Amino acid sequence: MAKYSVILSNVGSVADRYVPTGYGHPFSVEQLFERASSIPQVSGIELIGGAHVDNNVKELKKLLDEHQLQLASIIPDHFGQMKWKYGSFSSRDPEIRRQAIAHAKEMMDVAAELGGDLISLWPGQDGYDYLFQGDYTLERDWIAEGLKEVCNYRKDIKVGLEYKIKEPRTHSYISTAAVTLLLIQEIGADNCGATIDFGHALNAYENPAEVVALLKRYGDKLFHVHMNDNYRHWDDDMIVGSVHTIETLEFFYWLKRTNYNGWLSIDQYPYREDGLEAVREGVNAMESFVQLTDRLNVEEVEALLKSGSAVQATAFLRKLLLS
Amino acid sequence: MAKYSVILSNVGSVADRYVPTGYGHPFSVEQLFERASSIPQVSGIELIGGAHVDNNVKELKKLLDEHQLQLASIIPDHFGQMKWKYGSFSSRDPEIRRQAIAHAKEMMDVAAELGGDLISLWPGQDGYDYLFQGDYTLERDWIAEGLKEVCNYRKDIKVGLEYKIKEPRTHSYISTAAVTLLLIQEIGADNCGATIDFGHALNAYENPAEVVALLKRYGDKLFHVHMNDNYRHWDDDMIVGSVHTIETLEFFYWLKRTNYNGWLSIDQYPYREDGLEAVREGVNAMESFVQLTDRLNVEEVEALLKSGSAVQATAFLRKLLLS
Amino acid sequence: MAKYSVILSNVGSVADRYVPTGYGHPFSVEQLFERASSIPQVSGIELIGGAHVDNNVKELKKLLDEHQLQLASIIPDHFGQMKWKYGSFSSRDPEIRRQAIAHAKEMMDVAAELGGDLISLWPGQDGYDYLFQGDYTLERDWIAEGLKEVCNYRKDIKVGLEYKIKEPRTHSYISTAAVTLLLIQEIGADNCGATIDFGHALNAYENPAEVVALLKRYGDKLFHVHMNDNYRHWDDDMIVGSVHTIETLEFFYWLKRTNYNGWLSIDQYPYREDGLEAVREGVNAMESFVQLTDRLNVEEVEALLKSGSAVQATAFLRKLLLS
Amino acid sequence: MAKYSVILSNVGSVADRYVPTGYGHPFSVEQLFERASSIPQVSGIELIGGAHVDNNVKELKKLLDEHQLQLASIIPDHFGQMKWKYGSFSSRDPEIRRQAIAHAKEMMDVAAELGGDLISLWPGQDGYDYLFQGDYTLERDWIAEGLKEVCNYRKDIKVGLEYKIKEPRTHSYISTAAVTLLLIQEIGADNCGATIDFGHALNAYENPAEVVALLKRYGDKLFHVHMNDNYRHWDDDMIVGSVHTIETLEFFYWLKRTNYNGWLSIDQYPYREDGLEAVREGVNAMESFVQLTDRLNVEEVEALLKSGSAVQATAFLRKLLLS
Repeated sequence: MAKYSVILSNVGSVADRYVPTGYGHPFSVEQLFERASSIPQVSGIELIGGAHVDNNVKELKKLLDEHQLQLASIIPDHFGQMKWKYGSFSSRDPEIRRQAIAHAKEMMDVAAELGGDLISLWPGQDGYDYLFQGDYTLERDWIAEGLKEVCNYRKDIKVGLEYKIKEPRTHSYISTAAVTLLLIQEIGADNCGATIDFGHALNAYENPAEVVALLKRYGDKLFHVHMNDNYRHWDDDMIVGSVHTIETLEFFYWLKRTNYNGWLSIDQYPYREDGLEAVREGVNAMESFVQLTDRLNVEEVEALLKSGSAVQATAFLRKLLLS
Repeated sequence: MAKYSVILSNVGSVADRYVPTGYGHPFSVEQLFERASSIPQVSGIELIGGAHVDNNVKELKKLLDEHQLQLASIIPDHFGQMKWKYGSFSSRDPEIRRQAIAHAKEMMDVAAELGGDLISLWPGQDGYDYLFQGDYTLERDWIAEGLKEVCNYRKDIKVGLEYKIKEPRTHSYISTAAVTLLLIQEIGADNCGATIDFGHALNAYENPAEVVALLKRYGDKLFHVHMNDNYRHWDDDMIVGSVHTIETLEFFYWLKRTNYNGWLSIDQYPYREDGLEAVREGVNAMESFVQLTDRLNVEEVEALLKSGSAVQATAFLRKLLLS
Repeated sequence: MAKYSVILSNVGSVADRYVPTGYGHPFSVEQLFERASSIPQVSGIELIGGAHVDNNVKELKKLLDEHQLQLASIIPDHFGQMKWKYGSFSSRDPEIRRQAIAHAKEMMDVAAELGGDLISLWPGQDGYDYLFQGDYTLERDWIAEGLKEVCNYRKDIKVGLEYKIKEPRTHSYISTAAVTLLLIQEIGADNCGATIDFGHALNAYENPAEVVALLKRYGDKLFHVHMNDNYRHWDDDMIVGSVHTIETLEFFYWLKRTNYNGWLSIDQYPYREDGLEAVREGVNAMESFVQLTDRLNVEEVEALLKSGSAVQATAFLRKLLLS
Repeated sequence: MAKYSVILSNVGSVADRYVPTGYGHPFSVEQLFERASSIPQVSGIELIGGAHVDNNVKELKKLLDEHQLQLASIIPDHFGQMKWKYGSFSSRDPEIRRQAIAHAKEMMDVAAELGGDLISLWPGQDGYDYLFQGDYTLERDWIAEGLKEVCNYRKDIKVGLEYKIKEPRTHSYISTAAVTLLLIQEIGADNCGATIDFGHALNAYENPAEVVALLKRYGDKLFHVHMNDNYRHWDDDMIVGSVHTIETLEFFYWLKRTNYNGWLSIDQYPYREDGLEAVREGVNAMESFVQLTDRLNVEEVEALLKSGSAVQATAFLRKLLLS
């Protein structure tokens, strides 16, 4: 049974570097909850540290209860403040590294209080922009050290590490699924796993379905899923299914094939769209892919994978999608 | 009424730089005709100079007649011989440039003899690999001069210039649709137009449907279409529709919207597939896209384009493809 | 004699979508002038409509005079306000299109008042994000119509059209140098030309030096240059010369070879750097490339281009840069 | 003390898919030895299974001795024959998998006989082209199993696994440095490590210098280096240093910083160049980078890495390269 959630800010308005004041009008946290809860399939909410979680646990609990929503996850804020600009866990400043760890722990506590069992941690500012800028060894040491402390802080909260190959830095340290797995193995904690962002996988020329298999194979480490789409070259954060029909279908097939039972969470950036309408459509798309996956004849698909036939696979998809 | 054709070599075997002797066993021209003609929807054949056309016009005419196939086009060989390695129309060697022109003219004559009205000219070796290697001005002059002579040679044969951003050179001179249009305008001959290769468009981060519109807008210059698919970054020459469902659909919609009435020709490289089976599936895919395009409610699609709504467009496609 | 300028905001602070409030503290226009003028080689300033030009012509004139700076260009704001989010010149709303034209004209007037002769016009919001969203024909008609009106408004001010393949839209209409040239030819006004942004060229897999040649060849249409660098895949807007040493050198060589005598203007986004320090280094880099270009033995380079030898070109560059 | 070697075929002629018979005339193994040995800095040769090693150990030994060359490595042929077209170690056919293992072992034996201690294993055909084609779990199991058997066969021969993100398959299983490290850890043999191909790293949007650090950090696993250059998007296999001056310099700096003491081996594809001249220039370039690295003031560079200053790094490189 699929569980659909949404990152709360997705139903609101967003900015970019050209229109930093935003392409739409801002919404309060209450309004965002109101909007998100109007989408019938959505049963979970993903909150962002700072933006949504800021000494307001009681209010959040009330909002979740009122709207009969579960906490899907909290995304600590290691990317959205000026202080992280040279990195959070890999900052050269030990005080900043300390703050990065403390904030993650705090978000784990809040997640627990709100009935959740997951944080999805994206150290987006940890990387480098220029050549001859990064100390690639030392900074990875700091990241591993800090994340180890976070994961060991409390074992009842899972930590899904989200990778991305670039942006906001030109090069991120936690760049691909395999880099994430190396780090997970190094940290060696049961509650340490990965979050796949569908679009981030495409950006790294990963095939998202293959990433599901990879995370399964190396320790069953897929903890969380962020859904969106893009044109491969950049994290466009578009509506689910708007570009890559077949990759999205194969991704959902492999989620099912590997018994993924976590959340399917919308992570879109509706620059010019009404956030609510874009999320509603994204959720409809996820539901359509789930249903299509459920309708697939498993024996037929397994026979395809067994044969490895390009022609048969393409014919199968043509009949499925175009007729 | 769609007209389907295939580049003859596509139903055979191909090579790459690692297996230059080929991934399959070779076929004779007769066998290739036999194979191509076994695909019921195919009514046209595209021949490659040299490989298929080599002082054998009578035999080719007989083969076309025997199999009740039309000549869709001839692709002169400006890319497949050692002598073109430093370019054909832009070679620094005037004798090579002369040969490039002569070969194109000869292929125009053969096309006429075989009842065709089109050559599709791809100067794939015309470009450069290294920085500080090309004289970007002089070499473009030579290309324009040579192609002008070719187009003016006989006005009853159309010349479709095929662009590609790279490969086999790291940079091609005729790189994008817009570069091709600049050249077409410079040449200024009615019989000078463009061939879109669907995959080449993707490689240049062009949206194929938009290219159709662009070629329409600047002189109705779409003369020919080569179909295949890829993962955007490279000319993988995969089976039609195997990756980009929505781009392919939008492309066919715009072909119809702009009243394109030329050939839809398969241009795939079946490295590991049986060429015939891959082409058969590619043609089936083209037919499915044509039929789906014909089933679309034109008013609905036009209303989408008029509104420009991302959410509505995505919802429309979801319902069309996934339900 | 090279003329160095800088886009005024470059010496200040910038934002991105994750830190929309900015990675640094804001500066006033006066402070920005103060900072820019402290760079000894800089003799020109490029202003952005709205951000810097807002019913303050007198103040701007005073600031330019005070700091003995020339107006290099004004960049009208067709990208930085919520109202342009569905396009400016290609907006479906005729009132928005009217405003886009009016703003450009106004900036031409201001440029003239401030002693300039150029605006650099970047319609960054004109494009589309989703498939089946854009009417690629109609919207290009609107762009051509609007820009024609702008260029014809006053012939004493040049209009440099700046292209970019994507961002903020996933697909821009004015995407490449060749698309820009098609538009320039369509508009047919002497004062209509192009601005090259070095990084935008890289993003389109153009070779910047080749673009210089292309713009020369089709009407001597290079009006302005924006300098920066990136890792090819995205408009990282990094410090000049920080990544592509050889491409930058070849670009400066072709600027000289084609007798470009316009401005060399810094267009960097110093997310994490002090803007002034980053611009200072960018200008130092431009100066170093100009000087290195001037030191080159022209006969030797021309012999390279004449030979087309990859090995000789590479050996030449190795000796130049590494010894 | 740097050790320079070359893949033997690099001094000869190569083919691509358009000119499968080759852009130049073929050379015998004897001629290739003759040519390679004429480059003064070259002291090692890398052989390719099948192409160069084919029941001719005695002759090879003689040729190595005659030319006073060491065996740098053997590259088993898991990519250049029709039989590997559906994969070697991951083939669905157990007999093919068996042959892949047997060939690797045989090459280890030959390497030992020829006085070498390394094979560089690139399973380039192991991957997939189409969506819904690969069984990403099962095929990785087979690869791990096969390579474990190979590495355990004899511990005196190191096995450097070479990764590449794509080509000849659209998706390779051993795609990135991190995927390789996961596999190395899974295999768990001391003699199992990685080969970096500089260009393959660029193709995966890896920064080659960072890969050196990553392989050091996870077990000191850099066993071998293949050098070339490209334009990031494809494995153009160009002459060393012809495009990425700064990345190449940073790479050599990190090789030194991590005490790499293996071979620096040329892996270029001289489609249009004379192979010998291209390799000679590639070796000259490597030597120049090594010498430049040796001339660098280590304290200055280390201070840069400690500061992480983009402006200082860029200024440092400007002064180093442009003055």
